[in-house]
Amino acid sequence: MAETTKSRLAVTMGDVAGIGPEVIVAAWSRPEVHAHALPLVVGHPEVLRRAARLLQRNVDVVEFERSSVTRGQWAADANTIACIRAGSDDVLDVPAGAVDARAGEAAYQSVCVATQLAQDHGVDGIVTAPLSKAALHAAGHHYPGHTELLAELCGVTDFAMMLYLPPGSAVRAPAGLGVVHVTLHQSLRSVFDDLTSAAIVAKCRLADGAMRRLGVARPRMAVCAVNPHAGEDGLFGDEEANVIVPAVTEARHSRLDVSGPYPTDTLMVRARDGEFDAIVAMYHDQGHIALKLLGMHAAVNITLGLPIVRTSVAHGTAFDRAWQGTASADGMVAAMVTAGRLAKA
Amino acid sequence: MAETTKSRLAVTMGDVAGIGPEVIVAAWSRPEVHAHALPLVVGHPEVLRRAARLLQRNVDVVEFERSSVTRGQWAADANTIACIRAGSDDVLDVPAGAVDARAGEAAYQSVCVATQLAQDHGVDGIVTAPLSKAALHAAGHHYPGHTELLAELCGVTDFAMMLYLPPGSAVRAPAGLGVVHVTLHQSLRSVFDDLTSAAIVAKCRLADGAMRRLGVARPRMAVCAVNPHAGEDGLFGDEEANVIVPAVTEARHSRLDVSGPYPTDTLMVRARDGEFDAIVAMYHDQGHIALKLLGMHAAVNITLGLPIVRTSVAHGTAFDRAWQGTASADGMVAAMVTAGRLAKA
Repeated sequence: MAETTKSRLAVTMGDVAGIGPEVIVAAWSRPEVHAHALPLVVGHPEVLRRAARLLQRNVDVVEFERSSVTRGQWAADANTIACIRAGSDDVLDVPAGAVDARAGEAAYQSVCVATQLAQDHGVDGIVTAPLSKAALHAAGHHYPGHTELLAELCGVTDFAMMLYLPPGSAVRAPAGLGVVHVTLHQSLRSVFDDLTSAAIVAKCRLADGAMRRLGVARPRMAVCAVNPHAGEDGLFGDEEANVIVPAVTEARHSRLDVSGPYPTDTLMVRARDGEFDAIVAMYHDQGHIALKLLGMHAAVNITLGLPIVRTSVAHGTAFDRAWQGTASADGMVAAMVTAGRLAKA
Repeated sequence: MAETTKSRLAVTMGDVAGIGPEVIVAAWSRPEVHAHALPLVVGHPEVLRRAARLLQRNVDVVEFERSSVTRGQWAADANTIACIRAGSDDVLDVPAGAVDARAGEAAYQSVCVATQLAQDHGVDGIVTAPLSKAALHAAGHHYPGHTELLAELCGVTDFAMMLYLPPGSAVRAPAGLGVVHVTLHQSLRSVFDDLTSAAIVAKCRLADGAMRRLGVARPRMAVCAVNPHAGEDGLFGDEEANVIVPAVTEARHSRLDVSGPYPTDTLMVRARDGEFDAIVAMYHDQGHIALKLLGMHAAVNITLGLPIVRTSVAHGTAFDRAWQGTASADGMVAAMVTAGRLAKA
């Protein structure tokens, strides 16, 4: 029987040609994963057994029916990997480290099953292992990535990705540091078309909600400038005065603890040193340069705005190192622990 | 008599209302400063004496005539600060921590005298303490900053600023890491107007020359992308294909060891870990976010393209903390040691 005091988590296997299966198996043996969560893998059980043999882990992979899981009739612990089958036996022939439509299809199926389980309240949240966008596309599923697929499955249009460095990593804020991006996967030139006060305020709200669920009573949030020296009083650009300052003012009127815009280079140092719980970044590299230097391997990707809890590792499939047994499980452990905390909140 | 085996350095006092005088006095007692360099301060000797009293340093401030210095008839050591007077007694009435035209004028005079000394070969290089742009402007000298003033004094138009993290700091490359920016103090939106292949190649050449003078036989240089994921094959912008790739190709044809463009977030981690000796960044925050997180307090600002050696601390006047005796001298020590190395090369 599932222990109801623990958060029940569905963990997707991701792309079987990547490091997903091995980081799941490696994370499974870490006690912090089982302290407050009851995890379950969605994928092919034989792939998990191969990963266990690769890592020489003495762990059983036990398959459960989806209906059993929905009724709470399943169990897992550090020695037992619970698994729901998703995807066909095709994945057993997929070679390591290459883009393969069969792996893309299985990764897609795994996300669909896990999401459905969460929507049916069979689990309290989902954790996703990395998938290959190219393999997903090769299988005929044309999503820019995981997040957009999940948003469609959940029927949501107002969502955001938060990258989260948990406490105990390089950041000193007691509940860790969340970074939300106002714009993300687009050219730097096009950022200015999408940088609106409304978008900034929306991200402040999402960041505030997420940090509250992660245990911060009143999240201290800082908004990045987009220009160097925060525009140096208009000398280096006017987006601060025209777009960002009004957004910060509006967010403060909604009683959010937001300040800025700050020059981003010094802001990231202040955030590392614990002065803020969350950062709202204007574009991809602004947040990512800091996050990678602060330890992306331990970062968790949290999708905000979904009706279900969803976390993910922040790293990719790492095809160049897959199935060598050398991948760090730190990101997967952090993603599972964080999903457990979010699901409990 | 000046020891001719050591690099003779003129150190400007910077803005007397800021932390310049105290970091110079604090740096003076550090043995690494005197190991290979013979420094000399250009400024008001009484301000130095005040800083020495503030820091309770038992050090003599000895004033020399400019003609004596030009003839090599001067000396300095850890207990003796050699000084050439620049600026009037007005500075003795300047209060700490505020913008003051008298301090701006004296800082300007100090830079002019130091530069002239270097041009006359009275010294082998100059090191500048921070000045206040506002005070400089209040004194009627309308330069955007130090670098532009020096470029004008030297009659140079093709110059660049390199931020340099010396070996032993957070970076692992044996000779440290240099970061050159193709564009710097301008709005992010305007970066695209100035991002040309010619400008990128010019910065690669300057970075290569600087790292060679700092002891790298064949500097390994990496060029940043401007778009996230280096444009993801044109999906997120075309500046990589149209501007940066041609620049890298041209630089390689001139036998420079340059590669890229790389996604900047992961590139900065690779650079920290020692894979490159120099980075060519496309815009201010791209380089500065990484540099500040890697330890800007120990960074050195090197002006490339001048006929004289010039380094500077990378920090500002810090008016909010000036004349409290708490400012770190690490940046000034690094700037003096680095100028000494550059002057010897």
